[in-house]
Amino acid sequence: MQIYANNPNHKTWLEVEENSDFPIQNIPFGIAKVGDKPPFVATRIGDAVINLYALAKMTAFDSLPFDVETLNRDNLNDLIAEGKGITLGIRDLVSQLFNIQNPVIRDNPFLQMGILHEAKDVTMLLPVKIGDYTDFYSSREHATNVGMMFRDPKNALLPNWLHIPVGYHGRSSSILVSGTNIIRPKGQTLPKEGEPPVFGASARLDFELEMAFIVGKNTQLGDSIKANEAENYIFGLTLFNDWSARDIQQWEYVPLGPFLGKNFASTMSPWVVMIEALDGARVAQPTQEPQPLPYLQTTGDKNYNIALEVDIVPENGAATTVCKSNFQYMYWSMSQQLAHHTVNGCNVRIGDVCASGTISGKDENSYGSMLELAWKGTKPLKMADGTERKFINDNDTVTMRGWATTQEGIRIGFGEAVGKVLPATDL
Amino acid sequence: MQIYANNPNHKTWLEVEENSDFPIQNIPFGIAKVGDKPPFVATRIGDAVINLYALAKMTAFDSLPFDVETLNRDNLNDLIAEGKGITLGIRDLVSQLFNIQNPVIRDNPFLQMGILHEAKDVTMLLPVKIGDYTDFYSSREHATNVGMMFRDPKNALLPNWLHIPVGYHGRSSSILVSGTNIIRPKGQTLPKEGEPPVFGASARLDFELEMAFIVGKNTQLGDSIKANEAENYIFGLTLFNDWSARDIQQWEYVPLGPFLGKNFASTMSPWVVMIEALDGARVAQPTQEPQPLPYLQTTGDKNYNIALEVDIVPENGAATTVCKSNFQYMYWSMSQQLAHHTVNGCNVRIGDVCASGTISGKDENSYGSMLELAWKGTKPLKMADGTERKFINDNDTVTMRGWATTQEGIRIGFGEAVGKVLPATDL
Repeated sequence: MQIYANNPNHKTWLEVEENSDFPIQNIPFGIAKVGDKPPFVATRIGDAVINLYALAKMTAFDSLPFDVETLNRDNLNDLIAEGKGITLGIRDLVSQLFNIQNPVIRDNPFLQMGILHEAKDVTMLLPVKIGDYTDFYSSREHATNVGMMFRDPKNALLPNWLHIPVGYHGRSSSILVSGTNIIRPKGQTLPKEGEPPVFGASARLDFELEMAFIVGKNTQLGDSIKANEAENYIFGLTLFNDWSARDIQQWEYVPLGPFLGKNFASTMSPWVVMIEALDGARVAQPTQEPQPLPYLQTTGDKNYNIALEVDIVPENGAATTVCKSNFQYMYWSMSQQLAHHTVNGCNVRIGDVCASGTISGKDENSYGSMLELAWKGTKPLKMADGTERKFINDNDTVTMRGWATTQEGIRIGFGEAVGKVLPATDL
Repeated sequence: MQIYANNPNHKTWLEVEENSDFPIQNIPFGIAKVGDKPPFVATRIGDAVINLYALAKMTAFDSLPFDVETLNRDNLNDLIAEGKGITLGIRDLVSQLFNIQNPVIRDNPFLQMGILHEAKDVTMLLPVKIGDYTDFYSSREHATNVGMMFRDPKNALLPNWLHIPVGYHGRSSSILVSGTNIIRPKGQTLPKEGEPPVFGASARLDFELEMAFIVGKNTQLGDSIKANEAENYIFGLTLFNDWSARDIQQWEYVPLGPFLGKNFASTMSPWVVMIEALDGARVAQPTQEPQPLPYLQTTGDKNYNIALEVDIVPENGAATTVCKSNFQYMYWSMSQQLAHHTVNGCNVRIGDVCASGTISGKDENSYGSMLELAWKGTKPLKMADGTERKFINDNDTVTMRGWATTQEGIRIGFGEAVGKVLPATDL
């Protein structure tokens, strides 16, 4: 499919700063709210948030056969259900309407008033209603680091890891939009092997730098998605912070996996970037040896060059960038994850979220969690304000940023996934 | 709260067979559908399915301050959200309306026509819209059996098991109402240690005999439910078959827990029995040694005497009862499960499902899975038709039944959770 909106030569009449995440080639989808008015489906160009429902009401999308009331919702699910023909069509029409040469809105301040908001005046909501949330574990470097720390350094990767995009089900009720505060979780931990567990606030609260994709098409129970067709089932991507309480996780996770160590909160960035907008940022994935089973094999580039950064900002302190990673490091691609997820006939539904697992690279500063960056607390990180961190302190804010760079040099960004940690309550 | 409907001396003018699961003291809730007409909230007495929306329309519930349109839904969530004051009130009013001495409906065949259906004429739907599904692992006998088979027979229970109601998140999209066929899952398995994995249909398809409770009240993120108050957050219970592909599960589950080995299907019985209807069946739970941490301690009897049975019915064959267990064997109570689930601040929502984990007892015929009953395939079970089973064959039907018995000898039953296994497709 040729997508008009991806044209690297497009310019817009809206003001867009040079390093903006939201050039006219991005056109992501989100749910915005202004004051007490009802939420609406929105997109963003530069610092302008564009009300797509209002655009529809002024007949902007009349050439597309869909129910415009799907833009008058507090989540994207119904719009996504209209199919890629519609959502890509909307993206193309928006790209045309805001093209520098198009006078329709450009020269009509009255129209602009009903459609455009400054980003600072808008509250963004969680973009989708999430049915099921799956978290993968697809960075080889991350799995290796964890294996070295907690299991056998010489056999850090478990036997199944190179054959299976290992994943598990997480909690959908506690996925939060960027900006929502995180309450430090309480729980059982085992301070010392052989002694009884104790109860208290987690002392090892961590972030996990991840990306998430949002399912764009339902399957029926019994259906399996072919790896090479899997991207047709992906609507778009967001940043994702899979907050983790390492001490709670460590005591609980054998044999059934993470539970309370993870399900207290995850933070999602509000703008869903369509996978088609990232087409120019495709790259090859790392060589897979041994070759995966046929149902996991794909042709063409299925990874994406998306630079990722994590900042820690202490209360009233300056930001320290603690991690620089890239989504292209993933050993298992999203296509392989989705093919694996459904190979047993498991059904997926529009709005389901699949997160990548922590995205770590080879360099020590590319590790996607404090667990790895401070190597289980043995190498504390120096902050800009002179303090040190082994894990995340109360009142720290963790900010994740990410942006793809296309072959033509266009930056397709994701904005931010931000969460501030509040102290545990009622202890 | 004194609940009129629980009165053991009530009799109804409806016909109720002696061993019915649905005496007038039960009055469960479910979603029923007759032909092509819209689904409605229903209850059941004997073999009569009662349309509660139709009852409401004839003013039966006018004394209760709630939105009767919550009975005109394809799931119970909105009704449950009205609160126990309403749902218990409806239950009491139904109990009065169908009391043997009440002539209002009894003597009015015209009224009956709009309200009553024979169970055989009704299709039951999944009773709730499920947000998140959690599966616990709370039977000591089951955890011990699994530990003996797959880990160390001398240290079968893992170190955390006696301290934590271990649980994990499962898949909500593939929870199916009783009667839905199950397609045998495909996937990766490791036939022989050290050799490469292979792809194919699961050869070790199993059932897991469980019960599930349905959350009846929302909490906010950061809230923790106190163990002694947890039953206020439980709307009711169903039977639950957590279908499991043992060969897929075994290869995938370390370190993040079960995924494709479980998420292809779970079967739920359609009638939700309110926890208050089970009040007369309370029993003490097994002695807990070591004593759990304070947030897991409860007073009073928090387990329930619910007899459980599993039948296997081969295609065109006779039923063989392969398991007789009881929900009272659970080491960790539902109250403890819910207190643990939320102790870290994880929020729960109306309609969330928490399953018990496989319910095994001490006797070999009380084990709640084929894995244990046939002891990893080493002791095949004899079927009534002369065949043997190590696991579940294609075209076998697995039927679970359960019924509480109150101290006054009243049977409060759950009906059935039935699933037939169809062969794997597209191999």
